[in-house]
Order: sequence, then C-alpha cells, then structure tokens
Amino acid sequence: MSQPDISCGLEFSITSDLQACLTQALHSNFSFIVAPIVHPRFRRQHVLNSGKVGGFTRSDMILSPQDWTSRLVGKVSPYLNVDSEVSLVRQRHEDCLNEELSYCRGLGLPAIMLSLTSQKTNNLARIIQSYYENCHHPSLIWARVPLLNTNLRTVANDEDSELSSNEPWFWWSKFHERLDYDKRVGVILELSADLPSQKMLKRWLGEPVKAIVVPTSIFHNNKKGYPVLSRAHQELVVRMVEHEAQVIVSGARRHNIEYYVQYLYRIWKRRPNQADDPMLSYARGWEDYLQIPLQPLADNLDTHTYNVFEKDPIKYDQYQKAIAKALLALQKNPILNLEQKTVIGNCILKNEQIDQSDCNSDDKSTITVMVLGAGRGPLVRATLNAADITNSKVKIIAVEKNPCAVVVLAAQVREVWRGRDVVVIPGDMRHINLTPKADIIVSELLGSWGDNELSPECLDGAAGLLKPGGISIPCAYTSHVAPISSPRLWAAAKVAVSGTSVQKDKNLETLWVVYMQNKHDIADTKLVFSFEHPARGQKDHEGQEMTDYRGLPLTDNRRTATVSWTVEQDNVMHGFGGYFDCKLYEDEMISIVPSTHSPGMISWFPVFIPIKTPLRVHKGETITATFWRCIDTRRVWYEWIVEVGNRVTPLHNCNGRSSEMLL
Amino acid sequence: MSQPDISCGLEFSITSDLQACLTQALHSNFSFIVAPIVHPRFRRQHVLNSGKVGGFTRSDMILSPQDWTSRLVGKVSPYLNVDSEVSLVRQRHEDCLNEELSYCRGLGLPAIMLSLTSQKTNNLARIIQSYYENCHHPSLIWARVPLLNTNLRTVANDEDSELSSNEPWFWWSKFHERLDYDKRVGVILELSADLPSQKMLKRWLGEPVKAIVVPTSIFHNNKKGYPVLSRAHQELVVRMVEHEAQVIVSGARRHNIEYYVQYLYRIWKRRPNQADDPMLSYARGWEDYLQIPLQPLADNLDTHTYNVFEKDPIKYDQYQKAIAKALLALQKNPILNLEQKTVIGNCILKNEQIDQSDCNSDDKSTITVMVLGAGRGPLVRATLNAADITNSKVKIIAVEKNPCAVVVLAAQVREVWRGRDVVVIPGDMRHINLTPKADIIVSELLGSWGDNELSPECLDGAAGLLKPGGISIPCAYTSHVAPISSPRLWAAAKVAVSGTSVQKDKNLETLWVVYMQNKHDIADTKLVFSFEHPARGQKDHEGQEMTDYRGLPLTDNRRTATVSWTVEQDNVMHGFGGYFDCKLYEDEMISIVPSTHSPGMISWFPVFIPIKTPLRVHKGETITATFWRCIDTRRVWYEWIVEVGNRVTPLHNCNGRSSEMLL
Repeated sequence: MSQPDISCGLEFSITSDLQACLTQALHSNFSFIVAPIVHPRFRRQHVLNSGKVGGFTRSDMILSPQDWTSRLVGKVSPYLNVDSEVSLVRQRHEDCLNEELSYCRGLGLPAIMLSLTSQKTNNLARIIQSYYENCHHPSLIWARVPLLNTNLRTVANDEDSELSSNEPWFWWSKFHERLDYDKRVGVILELSADLPSQKMLKRWLGEPVKAIVVPTSIFHNNKKGYPVLSRAHQELVVRMVEHEAQVIVSGARRHNIEYYVQYLYRIWKRRPNQADDPMLSYARGWEDYLQIPLQPLADNLDTHTYNVFEKDPIKYDQYQKAIAKALLALQKNPILNLEQKTVIGNCILKNEQIDQSDCNSDDKSTITVMVLGAGRGPLVRATLNAADITNSKVKIIAVEKNPCAVVVLAAQVREVWRGRDVVVIPGDMRHINLTPKADIIVSELLGSWGDNELSPECLDGAAGLLKPGGISIPCAYTSHVAPISSPRLWAAAKVAVSGTSVQKDKNLETLWVVYMQNKHDIADTKLVFSFEHPARGQKDHEGQEMTDYRGLPLTDNRRTATVSWTVEQDNVMHGFGGYFDCKLYEDEMISIVPSTHSPGMISWFPVFIPIKTPLRVHKGETITATFWRCIDTRRVWYEWIVEVGNRVTPLHNCNGRSSEMLL
Repeated sequence: MSQPDISCGLEFSITSDLQACLTQALHSNFSFIVAPIVHPRFRRQHVLNSGKVGGFTRSDMILSPQDWTSRLVGKVSPYLNVDSEVSLVRQRHEDCLNEELSYCRGLGLPAIMLSLTSQKTNNLARIIQSYYENCHHPSLIWARVPLLNTNLRTVANDEDSELSSNEPWFWWSKFHERLDYDKRVGVILELSADLPSQKMLKRWLGEPVKAIVVPTSIFHNNKKGYPVLSRAHQELVVRMVEHEAQVIVSGARRHNIEYYVQYLYRIWKRRPNQADDPMLSYARGWEDYLQIPLQPLADNLDTHTYNVFEKDPIKYDQYQKAIAKALLALQKNPILNLEQKTVIGNCILKNEQIDQSDCNSDDKSTITVMVLGAGRGPLVRATLNAADITNSKVKIIAVEKNPCAVVVLAAQVREVWRGRDVVVIPGDMRHINLTPKADIIVSELLGSWGDNELSPECLDGAAGLLKPGGISIPCAYTSHVAPISSPRLWAAAKVAVSGTSVQKDKNLETLWVVYMQNKHDIADTKLVFSFEHPARGQKDHEGQEMTDYRGLPLTDNRRTATVSWTVEQDNVMHGFGGYFDCKLYEDEMISIVPSTHSPGMISWFPVFIPIKTPLRVHKGETITATFWRCIDTRRVWYEWIVEVGNRVTPLHNCNGRSSEMLL
C-alpha cells in the first residue's frame, strides 16, 4: 500500500460564476473548492420567521450533482454571529444560519465550513447539534480556527497565552466538547507566518484536523520567482498531511494558481522519513480502527491470525536469543532433577523417528524445553535454532490446546523437524501433568496490555511443569499506561457496534486494540501491573509463602495500581494508551511501550482504554488513575476510575459487566 | 393524612445474644436494632481466597426471617479498611468485607451500615457497586459519618474546615458520587455535642439522610434526672425526622433505655410549626415524586384534574381581585370600540334566558369579558363575583376547547348562572373569531414553569379577540430557576419509567413536576423567560413593530436566557428548581417562587430540571446556565446547558428529542 496522497483545495472568497471557479481549480490540479454558500451580493438585511423566503443564493442547477457532493465545500456567511450578546442579532443570525444549513441539506455538500472566533459557541454548537439531529444525510462540519490568535500579539509569553481562553485550540476544544466530540465535526487550521510552539503544534495532532488553510501570503519567492514555504511551514504541512489533513490554498493569487499546488505536491513527494519501519507499512489502513482484543484462551485462533503473527520479523529473533542464553546458562549450571522418573502418559503424537525410550531419557546433557501454547510451532523453531547455535542437546515438548494447531504441529514434527527430539502434547497447560519436568518453559501468551490474555493464570496453572529452579521465558512483564487526548478514538469507541446509549456505556468500558494515530499523549507512560514467572506465593501473616494442595505457590494475580501524572498543558483526556514490556530472559526484552518499542516488531498494536466522561485537564493539575485486575472463578476483568482535582469518572466496568477475559 | 411518625433504633456494639438484644429493644419501644454482622470474638486474623470458610459469625437460625428482614441493621466490622495504602491489608480487608456482604445477602437485612472515615473510598465504592451488580435483592447501604470531624478541632475557622476534604460531608458526597448517586445508598449522621454551622446543617437537608445517630453521651439530665437534649439538638432531631430520617440511640446506657426513646417521642410530638399551611397537607405523600407535566393544550384535562385545581383556596380569590380592579379601571376609562358590529357567528350555546339582542349589545356600560380556556367555569364564577362586588355590568363569553368541559359549562349557564349574561363558545381560542371583541380576557394557562403549558402561544393566537387597549389577565409572567443539589431527585429522574440507559438520557432531558423536599438550594432563584400580554410585535430593522396578515402583532416567543450564580458553599449540582410568578393585574400577583409563594396556593408544584452529569461546584465558582425556548411549526421545547469554570454539561434536549409541548 502507498502512503495517502496529498489532497488540495482552493478557497474562493467570492464566486460570481461557480462553474467557472470549479473548472479553473480542477484544471490547476486542485481536487475541490471552498466557496460561500450565499453570494455576498445577496447579503440579507434581516430574516423573519414569517415564512418569507427569497432568492438569497444561486440556483442548484448550476453544478452537476456529482460536483455538489464531492467537489464543493460550502462556507457559511462570515458575518453571522449566533452567540451575539444582543438578543435581536443572535436571533436573526440564527435564522440566517439555519437557512444556509437547510439550503446545503438539499445539495449534499461533503462539508460545510464555519469559523470559530472565540470560545463563545454555546448557541452555534446547539444549532449544529440540532442540524445533526434533524438531517438524514448531513454534511461534515469543518470548524475553522487560526493556528495563532493574532489578536494576542501583545502577549509576549507563549505560556500565558496558552493558558488563556483566547487560544484557538481552546475555542475548538470547547466547541467540539459541546458537540460531545461528534466525529462528523472536524477542525480546519489556518496557518499564519508565525507558528506556535512545538508543544502547541503537537497537541493539534490529537485533534481531528481535516484540513489546513495555507494563505498565499505566507509563501515567499525563491530565486527563480516561484512561491515556496519556509522550512518550518513545510514540515508542518507534511506532518499534517501525514495525519490525513487536506490542504486548502487561500487568499490573493500572486502567481499562477497552479504553481502553489505543484509546490505542495513537490514538498509532499520529497518529504523525509518515508517509512522503512515495517510497522508503518503493516499498520497502513488500520489507523485508529478499533478491534476487540483476542481471547486466545477462551477462543482458538484461526489460520489467518497465526499467519499474521508468525510473520513478525523481530519477536522470534528475540525469543531465540533469550532461549540461547538460557540454554547456555543451564549448560553451565544444570538443574538437579529430584523428580522420580515416570512415563509420559498422554504422549500421543511423538515423532516416530525417535525411539520410545527417548521420551524417558534424562541424561544430564539433555535440556528439556516445554513450549506452552506452541501454536503452529514458531517457538519450537526458535528453540531448535537456539539449540543449534549453542550446541545444546534439547528435548522439546510442545503443548497446544487448539486441535487445528496440533494437527499442523504434528505435521511439522513428521516433515520439518524429522530427526529432532520434539514431542507434541495436546491439551491445556493448566490441566496436564507431564514428566520429566521442564528445565525451561517458553510461552508467548501476552496481549497488547501484557497480562490481558491471561498469561499469569496460564503460567501459574502450568507451574507444576517446571522443575524447581527452572527458567520461564518470559520471566517478567509489566503493563503501562499514558493518559491521552483523542476525540477520534473516543467518538469511535462511543458509537462502535450499535451506537445506542446502552451499547455506548459498554463500549466505553472495554479495552480496544488499535493502531493509534490521531491522539496526543498528555503525559508519559507509567507502570501498572507487573508479573513474574515462576511466580511466588502470597505471604501469610507470618511472612511464609503459601502453597496450594499440589505444593505449588499459592499466587494472587489480583492487582490494584494507582498512577498519577502532572498535566503540562491544558487538554482534554479521553482515556489511556496501554502498552506492555516484557523481559524474556536476562537482558532480552520485547516492548511495545513507545519509548522502548522493539524496532520493527509488528505483533501488537497498543490498547485504547476509554473513559466514559472526557475530562478537561489544566496545566499543573494531577491526573490520578486507579486500575484493578479482578478475578472470579471463571473470568478476569479490569476496572478503572480516574480523578482530576475533585472530579471523578464513574467506576468503569464494575464487576466486569462490559468486558471480561474468560478463564 | 398524619405526619410521618418517628422511628427509633437502638445500636449495640456487641451482641452476645442477638435475640435477647432485639427483645429488649422492642420492649422499650424501639423499632429496630443496629448490630455487628460479625461477632467481634470471631475477628479473623486473615482470610485467603483458598476456599476456606469458617464459622466467622452466628448462625442464621437465631432470629425469625421476619426479624432479619425488618428489625436488624447489620454493621460491617469497623476495622476493615479496604482503601488502605498497604496492598496486603487492602486485599485481605476486601476479602473480609465481601465475606460479610455475602453473608448478609442470605439474610435479607433491610440495611447494612458502614462507616466513612475519609474521602478515600475508591475501593469501598467499587466493592459496593459490585455488590449491587451481583445481588438480586440487595440491602440498602447506610454510610455513617460524623456530623463534625472531631479530629479537626484544631482548625478554628469553620469556613476553612468546610472547604477542606476533611469535612465529613465531602467524604459522603464523594462516596455517593462514586456510586453515581445510587438511591439505595443513604447517609447516617452521627451527632456530637458540638454542632456545625446552620449553613452546613442545611446542606445536609439535600442529602438522603436515612437516620441520625444520637449518642447517649450528648444527653444531659434535667432537674428530675431524666435524659434531655439541648434546644439546638432538639431542633436538629425534629428537622431531620421531618425529612424522613430515623433516629438511632447509641452508646453507654446511663439511664433506663426506655427513657431515651420516650424523650425522643416527646420532642417529636411537641414540635412547633405543625402544618397549618394547606400546601403541606395537600402535598403529603407526593414528596419527591416525579410527574410528567400536563399538556392541557394537546390533551384534554379529565374531571379529576379539574376537581383538584378548582379546589385551590387562593388562586381564584386572586383572580377575582384582579378582575375586580380591571372592571373598576374600565368603568373609569372605558375602551372606545372602533370595531363594526357584526353578529357572533358561532354562538351556539347561549343562555336561553337572555334575549338574542343581548349578544349584539354594546352599550358603554357593559364590559365584555372573555374567559379563554374556561374549563368548568371557576373563572366565570370569579368574574361574576367581581362584577357583583364592583357593581359592573358584564357580558361573559366563555371559550373552551374541551367538549366535556363545554357540557359542564352549558349546564352551569342553565342551572347556576341563570339570569346572568354568560355565553359559551366551544373552540380553540387560537382559531375562532368573535365579535364584539373583549374589553378583558381572562385565562389560566400557566404551568409550573410559567410558559410551559404554552400560554404565550395560546394568548397570542387569541390576540384578535381583544380590543386594542384591552386588558389581559394575567398581563405578565416570568419563569425562575435556582441551581439545586438533590441526589434523590436526580436518581429518581435517572431511573424513572424504564431504567435503561436510553431512557435515562431522555429522563434527564425532561422537566418534572414534583413537590421537592429532599433538596438543597445552592443559590437564589433568578429570572429566566418573561412574557407580556397583550404581546408586542417584533421590531423590524427600522424599529417598527411588525404585524401579521391579520394586522396583529407578529410576536416571537422564542427566548434565550443566560443566568449566573456564585457558589457559596462546596456542593454538587444535580439540576434546577423551576418556578414562576405572574402579575394578574396591577399589584395582584400569584407566585410559586419560594420567597414570594402565594400563601396556601396549591395548584402548582415546582418543576425539577435535571442535568445529565451532576457538577461538583466549589465555593466562589460561577455557575452559568443558558436556557432556550425553541419553537417549530408543531411544538415548543426547552434546551439547556450549564457551565462551571471550564466544565460544561452536554446540551440537553437538543431539537426537543426527549421532551416537547405540542401546539
């Protein structure tokens, strides 16, 4: 798949001949035009609710339906101020705006553009909300704000103006909040010669920026006399287009209009950092697309899923390195086997090339490696490779509960791994008993948020398969979260599946696997839940580790974690990004935490953990989140709550009512 | 109906013989006892999730099912701290609490009491929420807090401690908020020798105080040696019991236990201000009971409703006084009739006692009074009385659209008002044309929130029936609101009708008529929408009043009003109390605004206007509410939005999606 291409539009402040304007723009390689809905000549003195409707704008016959619905963005009259302090003005402007909106309704425009000029948008938001309630096929609403409030020039200190309600980000954010972050409402940023700080620009990347307006006045001429942008502006344009913004050229034409669009195409083509990260090409098309997490314990994975995961270019390399190190460590310090020898009772799928007695062999030089949840065998392969590299003699026992995968494994044993000591045991690792016990157990049971595919429960259940002193790969993992702003992800979660309110609450109490793109981190990631393997038992009141009836550690995988962050910039919190990192063995790690992400590893997208009520947060405030990992006899689930100052969200997913992982 | 009686309980800190304790309490005239769920002797060192369950409390055989389910409030063990900083303590105490809750589940206790000792109740609230999710017939939860945090004695300034998170009200309020103001969760106030300020006590009246605990230590002995309370404590007890709190006597018995309960009964019986206000007895049983507002324009009222409203001891007196004043004014300054005489076309139900020519009589001494929406005739009666008192000659034309009421009116004309000049015109006042026109029109079309039964639309529609310069009674009215705290009303609105989330949003976008009792005013009432009659037309851009095709004023009954209040005390806002006042004529008013309520007038309960997301408000903050009165061709509706600081509620009732008044 190729990168999304740049899409350019041309803005007209007046269109005496709409058809001619559109033709000119298309000939100059623009994809669409932005034009006033109402011809300025027809500016109405007043409008009454007396049923009088005049010819306040052009006929709908002048463009083809195709052009109306794909090539024209309509601008509402700029002088309309429906939040005026003056009741009479407010009411008349409201009537005018409704007239323009209802005219557009008949045309099916792709988008309607309006301008925000302050945070006072109560009535405007109400009218737009009413438009969406009333209209069966409404247009997108594009709310235009300047990137910098140039009326604020007198304020020297950038930090101060940022806090202020005079900041255009705040105008937009309040407007969008008033519309409950409706995903049909986006923001249009109008660039100016001066640009705000990087921190403020970054915050915009969390907003649904549908287009940037580039005034011709901020271009300057290069040596050859062609219009060009400063480096900072070029970078901003590229960054925004990467985030799926379109570009609108606006203002007086000092050059052939074609030059501007040619230049924009050129800087887009020449942009640096064109993906060599496998994740970028792998994730293309999945940006901000919400998926329900897999439940590989309760459900069996399908062939397609195995196919995707086995292609990870990094993960199995890391496992192979970790297994190799573990094998070398055991060569130096073998584990004394104190267990008595018995025959494996349920070894039904062993390689016929190997003598039956091998199953019982326990000479010191053979290291027993159990692959728990072997799937179709990638970790068996990694173990065999590691054994070859380290010149170890290994016996591999591959345990797998999915019957389809077991068939593949058996075929691999017969065909690919012939001559190697590999045994396949069908069954659930929590419920089988095998001898000899393993020196090393290898598993890959982690979800996007670490323990959310029940790795702790599976590995604790399988603890009896490991020799005392044996090695678990992975040996530890931790989930991480960061508070994020993302109207897009939140709105997507809110309406996912059915869109009813009942469903909404459910969807906002669920973890979503998603390649997050249109989001902004409010603060750094922090640790949540940690697990170690082999796990240690709970301590009793005398400080002794407790054991269960099998003599294995009595673990408690319930967890509570309270995490706090200080807010550095005014923002709106919509939930959390969730990640994990994992120590396989010694210094061999895998991670999807952004700051330490294993380069090129594609097996996991992060999770988005929404909150039901977005929280407006201010610089200096503290966000405190508490997460619970809860367990009953048949399932595991998370609950969470967030506090900012004296505001608190409801408790999410109480008693696992909306989302759970089945044991 | 009589006032609710006092219900007293007796608290035991230890119950070696539960049956004996209960018997003793009942014999001493207590209605119930409060006792620990777990016998303190059985205090557990630790509890594991290993499935071990011991005999940690008494058998359920010792009381009858009847006693368990009505006479015993269970107290959870006081040492449990499920929000401990220490993870191990937290987890063990959580296990213990769940054990106690699940033991209670089997017993069906009416209530379970637990104590709040700080604002840290995240985990406690989570466990209670989970209990409610899990349990089919859960008990009430009674959360006990001290009325004064005695640990705060060092803080001299009452105002400071009030702001502080060390304030027990805040502990309770946060806990209840975390439970989404669940109506099954109430608060128990433990009295102390010192009492907080009146302002703080008042705030408690908005909370669901289920009981007050009166320690025996705050009684002192009177001259005869019997236990008595200070005057301030007596008043507090009475006030709380009036708000449906029960009373629990607690602590060491320095007297025969019967003396305490006898004393409490006595101060209740002797309480001052025992209702002579007709409203109090009329409203008994309707406290905090939500009703959908009537739509008398769209629906016809039934006999029962007429019966109730006609019994108002005050309203028609006020009308009569206003009509009398208007008649006197017109006797002095009659309106010159410039209209040409025509015959009333649709006068079909005139009193046969009156000569046909009377219908056309227009001699100056006769004043034409039209009663618009005459119902079964109370305003006709008031007009006749006013004419008698002022010695005026009146012609009354009674217009009524409800056919059932028309029948009653016609019967009254025949039987009661024989000899008087009364004509009944069936029809909708907005759509009939009558001659001669009226000198006075009298109507009673107001709802609890003034214009919410469409009085403006009806009277504007009937404007053609009034002579230029004629008098409308009422001549002006205004709606009022005050922000209120009321978990009870909010929770009732949330679950009203069906209790699903879809319904919930609808219910929280609706005005509710309710006799509000368990609420606290956060700030004073302020004006919202005003209307005058006869109405004036909108002004055009040259400042001229506009008229419609009939030459009548072209009115615009849409309204926007923005109202602000400063918060005087930390609180949680759940919505508004809505009221109206109305100028009938000159200084004759009717009002249901609390500060000016017409004494004894029972026709209207106020409205409760909820907000979807309760807002925690702090002393010094500004609450800003905007209300819109919206109109389309077939209906009228309200929308509203509330802002506090940078927090904003969603827009309520966008496009009238949840509630509307049909035209």
